[in-house]
Amino acid sequence: MEIKEINSGVCAAKGFKANGVHCGIRKNRDKRDLAVIYSECEATAAAVYTTNLVKGAPLTVTKRHLANGKARAVICNSGNANTCNANGITIAEQMSDLLANELNISADDVVVASTGVIGQPLDIEPIKNSVKELCDGLSDNDTASEFAAQAIMTTDTKLKEVAVEFEIGGKICRMGGIAKGSGMIHPNMATMLVFITTDVAIDADALQKALSDDIQKTFNMLSIDGDTSTNDMVTVLANGMAENPIITANSEDFAKFMTALNAVTVKLCRMIAGDGEGATKLLECYVSGADDEQTAKTVAKSVICSSLLKAAMFGSDANWGRVLCAIGYSGADVDISKIGVKFKSQKGEILVCENGAGVEFSEEKAKEILLENEIEILITLGNGDKSANAWGCDLTYDYVKINGDYRT
Amino acid sequence: MEIKEINSGVCAAKGFKANGVHCGIRKNRDKRDLAVIYSECEATAAAVYTTNLVKGAPLTVTKRHLANGKARAVICNSGNANTCNANGITIAEQMSDLLANELNISADDVVVASTGVIGQPLDIEPIKNSVKELCDGLSDNDTASEFAAQAIMTTDTKLKEVAVEFEIGGKICRMGGIAKGSGMIHPNMATMLVFITTDVAIDADALQKALSDDIQKTFNMLSIDGDTSTNDMVTVLANGMAENPIITANSEDFAKFMTALNAVTVKLCRMIAGDGEGATKLLECYVSGADDEQTAKTVAKSVICSSLLKAAMFGSDANWGRVLCAIGYSGADVDISKIGVKFKSQKGEILVCENGAGVEFSEEKAKEILLENEIEILITLGNGDKSANAWGCDLTYDYVKINGDYRT
Repeated sequence: MEIKEINSGVCAAKGFKANGVHCGIRKNRDKRDLAVIYSECEATAAAVYTTNLVKGAPLTVTKRHLANGKARAVICNSGNANTCNANGITIAEQMSDLLANELNISADDVVVASTGVIGQPLDIEPIKNSVKELCDGLSDNDTASEFAAQAIMTTDTKLKEVAVEFEIGGKICRMGGIAKGSGMIHPNMATMLVFITTDVAIDADALQKALSDDIQKTFNMLSIDGDTSTNDMVTVLANGMAENPIITANSEDFAKFMTALNAVTVKLCRMIAGDGEGATKLLECYVSGADDEQTAKTVAKSVICSSLLKAAMFGSDANWGRVLCAIGYSGADVDISKIGVKFKSQKGEILVCENGAGVEFSEEKAKEILLENEIEILITLGNGDKSANAWGCDLTYDYVKINGDYRT
Repeated sequence: MEIKEINSGVCAAKGFKANGVHCGIRKNRDKRDLAVIYSECEATAAAVYTTNLVKGAPLTVTKRHLANGKARAVICNSGNANTCNANGITIAEQMSDLLANELNISADDVVVASTGVIGQPLDIEPIKNSVKELCDGLSDNDTASEFAAQAIMTTDTKLKEVAVEFEIGGKICRMGGIAKGSGMIHPNMATMLVFITTDVAIDADALQKALSDDIQKTFNMLSIDGDTSTNDMVTVLANGMAENPIITANSEDFAKFMTALNAVTVKLCRMIAGDGEGATKLLECYVSGADDEQTAKTVAKSVICSSLLKAAMFGSDANWGRVLCAIGYSGADVDISKIGVKFKSQKGEILVCENGAGVEFSEEKAKEILLENEIEILITLGNGDKSANAWGCDLTYDYVKINGDYRT
């Protein structure tokens, strides 16, 4: 199945419009802080949510709205997470109602999301005052998707959007997504804010199954800082306007849909990891030779989460002992004496550990490889044929700077 | 039971001598890198070890030597962990043999330990050349304990030693310890390098039980960076020279011994946490109101491990939302709507969250409290009467600096 990447975002799929404006939750007038995504017709909807017991109020409201597997629009603000506030649910419902009124749709068809500081009351006034401007500006061009992507950014430094084109049932289909990172990211079952749109026709059960399966290999294998956010959410809206034969969980096209979805989510994972708070490098850990997939995932995630390894990567230091250390405490049942480790980048690859012990290598070559901004850590366990990927980033001065005084 | 802190270390207890020299494993000639501790007579010995599957070779050798519950001496180098090296076991055995020959004791009575970089062969020559000087300088004065404490330091900036005096069975007893931190610290069942000596008479089973129980509330509740080291080890040597009636696990004095041991280990925990790599602040998280102790421990450890909270503490930012976030993803079964959070230091305390939601507080007062270098995070769960403590430190620029290029 051919998947063509196209230069677009959430407006790539037929019948989707978007916009993003500055409503005033953030002080900086140049920063958009309120986003909308809208489908011309009702869409099948699926979502996954954070497993943090502390849940943002918007997630509770969204979960209720998506109980029927249908949605038409998304409203999302940045700058305030609307979490741990006594009136959080009321505010999230007001956001839904305001958008629904303006778009003349049912409030039940609105996905509502918030991201930003936890525990500060969210004032509804700026949203109320801007919702007309927000909806008046809805457009299906690429700039509209960019505006929405900008509006959901918090400490992100790079806009995150992706879109792909593929064929299902003889019909050209499209899928696109926007995402926001970039701290408090250590997904577990669900993940950060990601909104995906597609014109594929797919039933609600199949869509939810596709998403729930996919995140196990994508967003749940991503960690910036080990902190699982209270407001993580991934939603997919599929409006069927591509007119393909409707996909069910048992139909042949389901696998194709999964492949397309995975192309979008992996790309977003890499974008989120590479733009982790303060990050200078995208780290990708590929573990192979495991006797089961869970072992490979456990090892990959442990390595990508190690603060010591992350700091070593910032310093372009081939400190493979920290890789072995992180494997050793991961809880995975592995034979240390069979482990091999390589570092790889555009500049080549270098073997640094074999059979669980160091090998002689050129420090100069290792440095050259590690000075690049996309680093692969390749681990072989020598036990089987299962593998897994995890994504993360280096730990830098700027991570500390950003988080040392984020709130005030 | 009265426990008097005294200004001393591993030579506080009767019959113990120590020393530390520069042997040349480290390039800096001013940094001692080889330590010895010696008991005049055979001592009961207990130890706990890292649960990391990657284990330093010295731990394997020490475990074998302590199988009979007896030891007389400790040799420990810094600058090289002797871990993930093909010849590691041989080198660790050579270290034991060299010390045993010099002290005219059995090699089986030697505790051997190494700390430093993983995966670089440890040259035995510097140790061989210095072992006579090391043993010739053995002394029971406080400077000798300091020399040993200096010799086991890696990135530690502060010497860590403590000693206490107490009475058991009408006899004055003493116990002292030295420790080294300060990165790769997230103990699990066992912990970093800590050597404790005492002149209490206690049988081997009771000593091991006391140590194994104690670390569950002390070293296992300590985290600097979430990375469980490959070389963690805590050992206690008890040589009986205080001449108290020998303590067994069932004797009345066992509880007294536990109290004394806990006084030493808590002090060392606080020292290690406060001198975590790059740390400017000691963080202590006290969780109360839990319906069982494990819940309190899980919550305390999760909060103390949160990179985001650690960075906020560095910035003296009362970002309590990050405390709630870390409680929420800890895996503990708690009712978020009952949680209260206070920050406390020498400058006073301030309530920032009640019933799971923010309360109005003076940012100015919070800043004043958080600018101190010992911060308590007080969490009430409102569910029961169990509690737990955990220790950690802030996340700073210097942590990144130290670990961005530690090896080369």
